[in-house]
Amino acid sequence: MVDIRTGGVLATMRPELRRVEERLEDAARIDYPAVSELILGLVRAGGKRLRPLVLLLAGRAFSSDPATLATAGAGVELLHTASLVHDDTVDRAALRRGRPTLNSILSSGAVILLGDFLFAQSAMLAAATNSPRVVSIFASTLADICDGQLREMFVAHRLDQTREEYERRIFGKTASLFAGAAEMGAIIGAAPEDDVRALRGYGSDIGMAFQIVDDVLDFREATEQLGKPAGHDLTQGTVTLPTMIYASGLTEGSDALIRLRDVVSGDNDEPAAVQRVVQEIRASGALETAMREAETFAARAKERTAVVPDADTREMLIEVADIVCERSA
Amino acid sequence: MVDIRTGGVLATMRPELRRVEERLEDAARIDYPAVSELILGLVRAGGKRLRPLVLLLAGRAFSSDPATLATAGAGVELLHTASLVHDDTVDRAALRRGRPTLNSILSSGAVILLGDFLFAQSAMLAAATNSPRVVSIFASTLADICDGQLREMFVAHRLDQTREEYERRIFGKTASLFAGAAEMGAIIGAAPEDDVRALRGYGSDIGMAFQIVDDVLDFREATEQLGKPAGHDLTQGTVTLPTMIYASGLTEGSDALIRLRDVVSGDNDEPAAVQRVVQEIRASGALETAMREAETFAARAKERTAVVPDADTREMLIEVADIVCERSA
Repeated sequence: MVDIRTGGVLATMRPELRRVEERLEDAARIDYPAVSELILGLVRAGGKRLRPLVLLLAGRAFSSDPATLATAGAGVELLHTASLVHDDTVDRAALRRGRPTLNSILSSGAVILLGDFLFAQSAMLAAATNSPRVVSIFASTLADICDGQLREMFVAHRLDQTREEYERRIFGKTASLFAGAAEMGAIIGAAPEDDVRALRGYGSDIGMAFQIVDDVLDFREATEQLGKPAGHDLTQGTVTLPTMIYASGLTEGSDALIRLRDVVSGDNDEPAAVQRVVQEIRASGALETAMREAETFAARAKERTAVVPDADTREMLIEVADIVCERSA
Repeated sequence: MVDIRTGGVLATMRPELRRVEERLEDAARIDYPAVSELILGLVRAGGKRLRPLVLLLAGRAFSSDPATLATAGAGVELLHTASLVHDDTVDRAALRRGRPTLNSILSSGAVILLGDFLFAQSAMLAAATNSPRVVSIFASTLADICDGQLREMFVAHRLDQTREEYERRIFGKTASLFAGAAEMGAIIGAAPEDDVRALRGYGSDIGMAFQIVDDVLDFREATEQLGKPAGHDLTQGTVTLPTMIYASGLTEGSDALIRLRDVVSGDNDEPAAVQRVVQEIRASGALETAMREAETFAARAKERTAVVPDADTREMLIEVADIVCERSA
């Protein structure tokens, strides 16, 4: 019996996660030492490895094929890393996880190619599972991620978007990879089809929770905790759930709504104006309302773990849902 | 018996190529009409479809699975298109095939995401072949392409590079995809292993010939024929075979070598200085010497077709090798 209370899922899964780490470092190596160091630094700064963790847990829930799970887990994490590299170039972000982005060190051309290189390496890891179905999920997840990011670019700068539009966007951008990770893990673990679907749903739900928490943290945290400036989304004109909740409580024609519109549209990009709106959103209770929505997604994810036959794994999947909601950065 | 003389390989293979075209157009469609038009325009401007053609021919050389070959052929062409989109962003090119690049119309962030979207669609086509081996070749080809492009970025701007460095670079950048296309086709066609290797070699050789011809055309053609400014490589500081051949005939300390070094290093980026060096390279006979090297690769490619049992297909593969050397743009 695994003792989840002492150490928790991250400690219990450490040997499997270490195997993922080894695969990741192998894939991140490249012939040019200076560039290789940058990529390795980026890969090593990768936080909790929640995506591979979900994949590993979904796999071990049924039968176990640890080598293939580690390969696919590394593929999922590297796909995530590649997408962050391109995303930072798109956003021209200077900091990520408190470290300078590649974008702030290299030319944008070099960063594009390094992102492509990481995509290629992640696709090779997916192909190394030898499962056409895993590869197919992998490829359609990449398409979903691009779709979410394109939506953010072309659609997000509007206050009048619906909740459905927001959810579709964050599904693509974030939840699709958690959903894909859980689904790939379940397939590698030879789970019955109904359970593959349930686990995909689990991944999708914790992914939605993850992104909503991210969107809340963007308002809540100071630069040093978040690793990027607070209110970054608003500065970019990106409307997320807290802003939508806040806007829905404002009266048409009110000064607060005018201030918000000016910032979202980019008509007013003065840092003081952005910070004032950030403070107003914080004070409105919208962050707490959004957090409750994240918790609703996490609760649904937990319910979906009922299909998992192994009690230890089930508890760990539940713990991951809690980690997603409780993380502070 | 197919009459290769009237109409040739492009006419004979038109039905199969049309099927590739349909798959391509389906994959290029995206929810945002304006963006979808741009991508479709890009995909339709795609020239002779030599890469899918090589894949289709390598497949039909043995047994025939036309639906899978068309899917993989579209995947190969889309991978090529995605890589051009990112490459144009890296180069900040304004024209490609005589048309404005996406890069000159959209923000670089949007172009990165659209390139990623095309990568995703191409990976989905590869996955749809249901062949782990095809997917694996696809992924490693993408890694080879990135490697070639990174080499161009980090290593190419030196006159003292060896012929091996140049060949490794153009293999990655260009020949790897022709090699992969031929190999995937042969595998889908269930060719014997020795013949898969021979056809991969064929693809690699015509790919090398293709890139050398490209490098020669960069010096030879005027803007209107090439669709980009003549001497573009030199302006970028990229040393290609004609420049290497030319430099090897210059005396250390000569004015001509100093002029060349100043342009390659970027110390002198005056258009008049670049054009003077372009004229000197043209006058030196280096373009003709480089073309003979391209023809040597094409000749070796033709020899490798001896393994192909079907005479019609063999003749068409030989014709493709000629097309690669004879194309004027």
